[in-house]
Amino acid sequence: MTTTAISRPVCVLGLGLIGGSLLRDLTASDHTVFGYNRSPSAARSAAGEGYDVTDSLTDVLTRAQRCDALIVLATPMPAIPTLLDAIATHAPDCGFTDVVSVKAKVLELVRERGMADRYVGGHPMAGTADSGWTASQRDLFKGAAWVVTFDRALDDTPPPAQWVSLWIDVVHMATRVGAEVIPAQVGNHDAAVARISHLPHLLAESLAIVGDNGGALALSLAAGSFRDGTRVAGSAPSLVRAMCETNDEALLEALDETLALLNDARAHLTDERPSIEELVDSGYRSRIRYEARSGMHTGNGGLLASPRPVIRFQPGAPGWINQLAHAEMLGARIEVY
Amino acid sequence: MTTTAISRPVCVLGLGLIGGSLLRDLTASDHTVFGYNRSPSAARSAAGEGYDVTDSLTDVLTRAQRCDALIVLATPMPAIPTLLDAIATHAPDCGFTDVVSVKAKVLELVRERGMADRYVGGHPMAGTADSGWTASQRDLFKGAAWVVTFDRALDDTPPPAQWVSLWIDVVHMATRVGAEVIPAQVGNHDAAVARISHLPHLLAESLAIVGDNGGALALSLAAGSFRDGTRVAGSAPSLVRAMCETNDEALLEALDETLALLNDARAHLTDERPSIEELVDSGYRSRIRYEARSGMHTGNGGLLASPRPVIRFQPGAPGWINQLAHAEMLGARIEVY
Repeated sequence: MTTTAISRPVCVLGLGLIGGSLLRDLTASDHTVFGYNRSPSAARSAAGEGYDVTDSLTDVLTRAQRCDALIVLATPMPAIPTLLDAIATHAPDCGFTDVVSVKAKVLELVRERGMADRYVGGHPMAGTADSGWTASQRDLFKGAAWVVTFDRALDDTPPPAQWVSLWIDVVHMATRVGAEVIPAQVGNHDAAVARISHLPHLLAESLAIVGDNGGALALSLAAGSFRDGTRVAGSAPSLVRAMCETNDEALLEALDETLALLNDARAHLTDERPSIEELVDSGYRSRIRYEARSGMHTGNGGLLASPRPVIRFQPGAPGWINQLAHAEMLGARIEVY
Repeated sequence: MTTTAISRPVCVLGLGLIGGSLLRDLTASDHTVFGYNRSPSAARSAAGEGYDVTDSLTDVLTRAQRCDALIVLATPMPAIPTLLDAIATHAPDCGFTDVVSVKAKVLELVRERGMADRYVGGHPMAGTADSGWTASQRDLFKGAAWVVTFDRALDDTPPPAQWVSLWIDVVHMATRVGAEVIPAQVGNHDAAVARISHLPHLLAESLAIVGDNGGALALSLAAGSFRDGTRVAGSAPSLVRAMCETNDEALLEALDETLALLNDARAHLTDERPSIEELVDSGYRSRIRYEARSGMHTGNGGLLASPRPVIRFQPGAPGWINQLAHAEMLGARIEVY
């Protein structure tokens, strides 16, 4: 049996798509959870639906400190420094996690404030093109990957017991809402999401523009490949920029690999006998590998089991940090027992 | 009322996804249609399902000539020269169309053989990542764009009556299977599909490779944006190459615009304060324009009406060719009365 008992209440800061959905799921699972949203109108909507929510940051953090809650920073990157400062002031003993889609920059902000002993980074890989409380929903995280970082565990061996206890609670929280926890160090996380999340946005934006440049005829002829290839260009520009611009180094590496492939294809297209065999064969093999891995070939009935390998272990037991690093390398999900 | 009465039998050469689906729909609509497939096993499957099909090219073309059928070349580009030569030999009086996804190269092959008076180019914008007779299905073309070219009408005014009659039958055939006919000249068609169909393939192949380069962790974290962005990389490599390599000039133009956008984004990512505002804002606006045009915002109940403007006209009536050029510019569908 996987344990999903979180040892403390949860306090969610920011009730957008991710924070709002987390609040809904934890409430539904009968875990004590309360939230805060800066915009009073969204806070009122959430309260109107019966959720325990306020629009006062001071109030919510004072309460979190009083009940030793696990604080979840569920806002985009630009709000993080302010929230960290508020936590330092009003909830100086609480452990916290976040859901920002880049992890190195957040860890840097945390370290600058000397708060690393009570921080565990997180990133749920769930989302839609919509955002805000109205987009939040039950079961958003079911089967989704939820990265939980463990860099602090590599700084000292063993890491502080207080940090290990926080780490376990973050894992339990993600598991409780149906996510699959993938452990990763911040640098490896950021390199991975640059490839599979941030780069797709750059390509989708570019494709949308080049299609649009073709005028009415091109847009009228656009079918599935254009629709799918541009879908995430419909995401709120501010969110896309926040992700990509704060992961600039890793994104540059992924972008340069892409430019090399496209420039090479370009050169081959100008040959007397144009051939893009290399790109197409290699891209096809990569996609098939991904499909096999993600279990997409199991038919229409959905997935009966997660396609990700699983590693079960006990935090704090001998070798547990090596097991984490091993799981990270495999992209495996972990189960804590 | 739109007329969909085709004035002659239809003969489909090649029973893959497109040809097979066309054969199914025309048979179901009680129009006389017969087909040919080079692979005897697929021909046997189709015959076993009750379709009027042979694996002899000579037989099928002799029959087409005898009953003055409209011949549809429903194979990928590489088979087209052989089929044109066979038509010249065995069905020297039949009119014909094709479904190849590039149009200039096909027209060139047709003109080389002096067959332009009995050719009307076509391109149904329907498809899946699967191919072959087993992938063919009823209603594949419903609501899809079906480009019908009209270059021959611009060569002489008025164009030969025999050609106009053929052109009308091709339009009726596409309409009869539920497609929306968009008129276009081959050059404009090829430029448009380079942007919205061939470029998406190059980007999908590249993204699949760069994601794969990230190893198990990256693939494990991949979610919707990667899945959608790489979907068409799962298409058969031979089909992707046939499309892209025969549309090299137009594809190069679209690719160069893309490279310019990505190189510009790259430069901005290396700034001290990375910003990709220009790309993201412009990409977002383009996608929203496309969504508005394609009627994606009309809710879950599907589309009640086509999002494409419609132009109704009578072929051969004064000014009909100007109306075609006007429809082309608007990406409008046409209805013949």
